[in-house]
Amino acid sequence: MNIFIIGIGLIGGSLALDIQTQYPKAKIYGIDTNEKHVNEAIELGVIHQKAQFSDLEKADIVVVSIPVDVALQVLPKVLEFINDNTLVLDVGSAKEQIAKVVAHHPKRRNVLLTHPIAGTEFSGPRAAIKGLYKGKVNIICEVEKTAFKLQEKALEIFRKIGMRIRYMDIKSHDKHIAYVSHLSHISSFMLGKTVINKEKNERDIFDMAGSGFASTVRLAKSSPAMWSPIFKQNKNNVIASLEEYISNLQQFKKLMEQDDFEAIYNEMENTNHIKNILKGIE
Amino acid sequence: MNIFIIGIGLIGGSLALDIQTQYPKAKIYGIDTNEKHVNEAIELGVIHQKAQFSDLEKADIVVVSIPVDVALQVLPKVLEFINDNTLVLDVGSAKEQIAKVVAHHPKRRNVLLTHPIAGTEFSGPRAAIKGLYKGKVNIICEVEKTAFKLQEKALEIFRKIGMRIRYMDIKSHDKHIAYVSHLSHISSFMLGKTVINKEKNERDIFDMAGSGFASTVRLAKSSPAMWSPIFKQNKNNVIASLEEYISNLQQFKKLMEQDDFEAIYNEMENTNHIKNILKGIE
Repeated sequence: MNIFIIGIGLIGGSLALDIQTQYPKAKIYGIDTNEKHVNEAIELGVIHQKAQFSDLEKADIVVVSIPVDVALQVLPKVLEFINDNTLVLDVGSAKEQIAKVVAHHPKRRNVLLTHPIAGTEFSGPRAAIKGLYKGKVNIICEVEKTAFKLQEKALEIFRKIGMRIRYMDIKSHDKHIAYVSHLSHISSFMLGKTVINKEKNERDIFDMAGSGFASTVRLAKSSPAMWSPIFKQNKNNVIASLEEYISNLQQFKKLMEQDDFEAIYNEMENTNHIKNILKGIE
Repeated sequence: MNIFIIGIGLIGGSLALDIQTQYPKAKIYGIDTNEKHVNEAIELGVIHQKAQFSDLEKADIVVVSIPVDVALQVLPKVLEFINDNTLVLDVGSAKEQIAKVVAHHPKRRNVLLTHPIAGTEFSGPRAAIKGLYKGKVNIICEVEKTAFKLQEKALEIFRKIGMRIRYMDIKSHDKHIAYVSHLSHISSFMLGKTVINKEKNERDIFDMAGSGFASTVRLAKSSPAMWSPIFKQNKNNVIASLEEYISNLQQFKKLMEQDDFEAIYNEMENTNHIKNILKGIE
């Protein structure tokens, strides 16, 4: 089995590692514009060999794991080179535009739109982790537009690496993911910014930061090259979630200004419900 | 050595466990309005014995580790019962009001105002952890107002359990801690609220949540009984930090509305600097 990973970072690299464990005979090829990453990936054993787009004709599976803006160009290009039985996996965090770009392509049936809900705040081949996908949810969109045999091929891999499958339409995916993923990144980045700005005037403020702050601001380490195009492609949903978030913060501030700390207590108590929700995620 | 822990939760209980390790002969007494917590603490070996305020006359050290609003009542009461050589440790997250309440007390010199920057989102005696304080910062305020011998006694304990000491005036403490601790809690609670509200209308949204969301929203599990009075006592600083945070979020939203994703990229890249800052905290 010939697997091609285009973009050998956290997502593509981790998938390569898990596929190697499950399919010891698979040959893993890597394509990346970053030469250093390709060499690192070979040294780390994430991929076996460097490849070119022209090699894709022999691919059984192609994973396109690159920033969502680059994917809009690369995915149609991949479709030019593959054979009729190649499965192409998109793994991006925003689906509307990528779906549009392949919608009328004669090889649309070779593509499966997926979104594995897995990752860390790190990037590049060194960030690849064995077992990253175990027990994690993989959202599949527009499954009916993919050839049945290729669906089966994909599901077998996802099952073997331990993923839980969830089917969803693109509109719901993009709307919901804005709340549970994209918004968290913005809240974290802006928290980091607020405290860094303060630090400029007040030295040593970070000596006072504990593990709670570290946890809340963790996502502010994430890659701008990955996240800026996600926000762009999911603009309307992200803005809607951001408006609700800002409005909740403003209401909290108003309650404080009104000295209504009973209401603040209740707000927090109601939100403590998140404990039950998070069980099984952490 | 007789140690009294008033409020046997995460902070007081963890301190009791570390003191037991470092001072095997110490006798640990617990005072708590929650009978169940007292019994749990004895079963878990966090304390040795239940006690009353009237027993405090034999105390060498009293740790007042209760919500900051209750501390305003309890701390003066503790001072009525202790002897002249008792060290009383306050460990609250907001300092202005607790300092005022003891400022003119004849036993002011028995009190040391501290803020150990340590904890988790859990509470109660079951949340107590051995080694919680190792390598963590302990902020000491108004050190000059505490009797020198009692300062020495406190510093010996802090050194033995591995804490790094930082001295700070109350105004700076309350202002800075609003940014690096109190604000993170509000950003996390309001993120949790925003997503829970969405979930009410859109079912199963949480199946899509990953470890990034879990990390950002972790502090929303925190105890309202502990946090509501902290926000109340540090109201002005917390409101100021909240205003800056909201303004940064609004500016981010504006950049999105203007399709200025280059500026958004730069915002995120500048905030990536948090990576270096967090080294050693996590």
